[in-house]
Amino acid sequence: MDVNRVLHMNGGEGEASYASNSSLQRAVITMVKPILEETILDLVSDEAFLASKVLCIADLGCSSGPNSLSVISHIVDTITTTCHKQHRQPPEFQVLLNDLPGNDFNTVIKSLPSFYDKLKRGNINHGRSCFVAAMPGSFHHRLFPRKSIHFIHSSYSLQYLSQVPKGLVSEEGTPLNKGNTYIASTTPQVVSRAYYEQFKHDFYSFLHSRSEEVIKGGRAVLTLVGRRTDDPSCDENCVPWKMITLALKDIAEEGRIEEAQIDSFNFPCYAPSAAEVQDIILLQGSFSLTRLEGFEIGWDSNMTTGNTSLDNLRRARYVSKYVRAISEPMLSSHFGALVMDALFRRHIERVAELLNKEEPKFNSHVITLIRK
Amino acid sequence: MDVNRVLHMNGGEGEASYASNSSLQRAVITMVKPILEETILDLVSDEAFLASKVLCIADLGCSSGPNSLSVISHIVDTITTTCHKQHRQPPEFQVLLNDLPGNDFNTVIKSLPSFYDKLKRGNINHGRSCFVAAMPGSFHHRLFPRKSIHFIHSSYSLQYLSQVPKGLVSEEGTPLNKGNTYIASTTPQVVSRAYYEQFKHDFYSFLHSRSEEVIKGGRAVLTLVGRRTDDPSCDENCVPWKMITLALKDIAEEGRIEEAQIDSFNFPCYAPSAAEVQDIILLQGSFSLTRLEGFEIGWDSNMTTGNTSLDNLRRARYVSKYVRAISEPMLSSHFGALVMDALFRRHIERVAELLNKEEPKFNSHVITLIRK
Repeated sequence: MDVNRVLHMNGGEGEASYASNSSLQRAVITMVKPILEETILDLVSDEAFLASKVLCIADLGCSSGPNSLSVISHIVDTITTTCHKQHRQPPEFQVLLNDLPGNDFNTVIKSLPSFYDKLKRGNINHGRSCFVAAMPGSFHHRLFPRKSIHFIHSSYSLQYLSQVPKGLVSEEGTPLNKGNTYIASTTPQVVSRAYYEQFKHDFYSFLHSRSEEVIKGGRAVLTLVGRRTDDPSCDENCVPWKMITLALKDIAEEGRIEEAQIDSFNFPCYAPSAAEVQDIILLQGSFSLTRLEGFEIGWDSNMTTGNTSLDNLRRARYVSKYVRAISEPMLSSHFGALVMDALFRRHIERVAELLNKEEPKFNSHVITLIRK
Repeated sequence: MDVNRVLHMNGGEGEASYASNSSLQRAVITMVKPILEETILDLVSDEAFLASKVLCIADLGCSSGPNSLSVISHIVDTITTTCHKQHRQPPEFQVLLNDLPGNDFNTVIKSLPSFYDKLKRGNINHGRSCFVAAMPGSFHHRLFPRKSIHFIHSSYSLQYLSQVPKGLVSEEGTPLNKGNTYIASTTPQVVSRAYYEQFKHDFYSFLHSRSEEVIKGGRAVLTLVGRRTDDPSCDENCVPWKMITLALKDIAEEGRIEEAQIDSFNFPCYAPSAAEVQDIILLQGSFSLTRLEGFEIGWDSNMTTGNTSLDNLRRARYVSKYVRAISEPMLSSHFGALVMDALFRRHIERVAELLNKEEPKFNSHVITLIRK
């Protein structure tokens, strides 16, 4: 799988787009808001930052929906309000929205005029002192000039790997994770180890690249999917991909795809434990870890119910739509675009079955860092 | 006409796209290359710039084809080679590609991986020390933080206005430029005056905004369509829009559009004289004008002929395709998408007729500036 090419959310603003199906991710951002705000206030109370005439903020993994700009709006508002309270001139803001080059940046860019209008209405003084640019590239590599960034934000992106781990196939070419598309209870240890090693490599590269770009005292707030236990196979975060695997098996039984196609497909993501995250931050060594907290969020978070009851089929449709928005380009490049509708029809059924039995949740880590 | 929304080149990479029909603009860039190179060498010989660890370059009006990145590539190569010759460490490059939010940035962004690969092959040391971002917005306003830019490039963009001039309609609501879509020999003076006033306002705003962004000693190389004479109605640069007007009248005769629609349509662009450009630069006062030269370029410049002869119908098709790539979104929003094919079929005929009689040329100005 060419991750750089196929790892992107569904573009545009249509029914299947990420822009129309990212309420779950908005709920995550809302939960992290108090921590974001605290970190920002901490940053602006630093004398070095108060002297800065331009504050440079980057959102890594911005994707194409409205979530990224809503975070930026909150950061800019918080800083400007604080400066006004202290009778100080607010800085100008250089905002850099990052994602892989396959991301639909046009949709974000087209929403900028209304973003600027909203900023202007909120505060007449900074309507045009905030400058938003799109910065395409992999955050596992350098993205920005040296010592140019004051604040890094990233939400629900760092669990994605730069590639499907090597070593998921035996020397003879047999898939080692047969019947699964991610780590599952039947996954051999060599496979979950390969996943961890890839995450370790990628997260280390992420931190190393940022360490060159973020100025001394700069802050980061990073939220990612992570697991609560140390054992990678006991992971509630495997469950969303397990539902996809079950739906893939359903359409394989219908003869729409081959079983072997499932064996050779592996999602390029990993949900690390808190200890794993902490170890890599310590090992890389450029950032002080000031906070590492876990939180849970229900699969149907932020679902708008209107006046009707929340039956499980409707909840399953909601879940399936956002899973489709984030995974369709990957799945479609491997299994073909023609089977996607059938796959996600089955997926809704599989998710509904699960919801009849339990209340699944995503576990996440939120991390705050200071550049030493 | 909502210029911010409809002034953009045809997107994508298809047959009608600007990306596939911008050889004429590439020819313009090639003609300006020696001046660009001289200005860049002048810039890097400046001690203040040699001390800069990050050089910030902006291309204003980048549109969606390959031309913008080819200019950037040339600038980065020139600076890096010069530094190497002088046994100096080249700077890192922050590149900002600007156009209106309606521009198809996705197509430029998708070409970045191969742009970086090419840079890397050319010089192993700066493969990942050049960081290209897309910066959407109108260059008639602020685009970048204060004192952040070292070098500005803009090619064939500054002739576009921020809006259709006010005052092209009488107090009673009658169009004053009846039967024309731009300044023509039958255009009343009040109309050409309104065009000039709009250009003056816009170019002044452009210079004023840049004066806040470009650091002292920073340079600009600006190329724009301009006329050779002082009389705005004696303008060879009216001719391309005249051909569109003739084609519009043809399809009005066929009953596809109303004559009144032509009367109320006016292109939002202006080809200034050298004196007009110079006056506005002096009036604004933040930049020293170091060069102001005119040059001509044939309408069929850079047309690849293959093995066949250059008959006028083929030349007319070439011309019509690039005129369509730059004007279709504007024309289509006013006259409707359904008549575009018919319009440009007629346009090819009208251009071919003209080519049978003369060798039309675009006249352009190239300007170099230094921030005082």
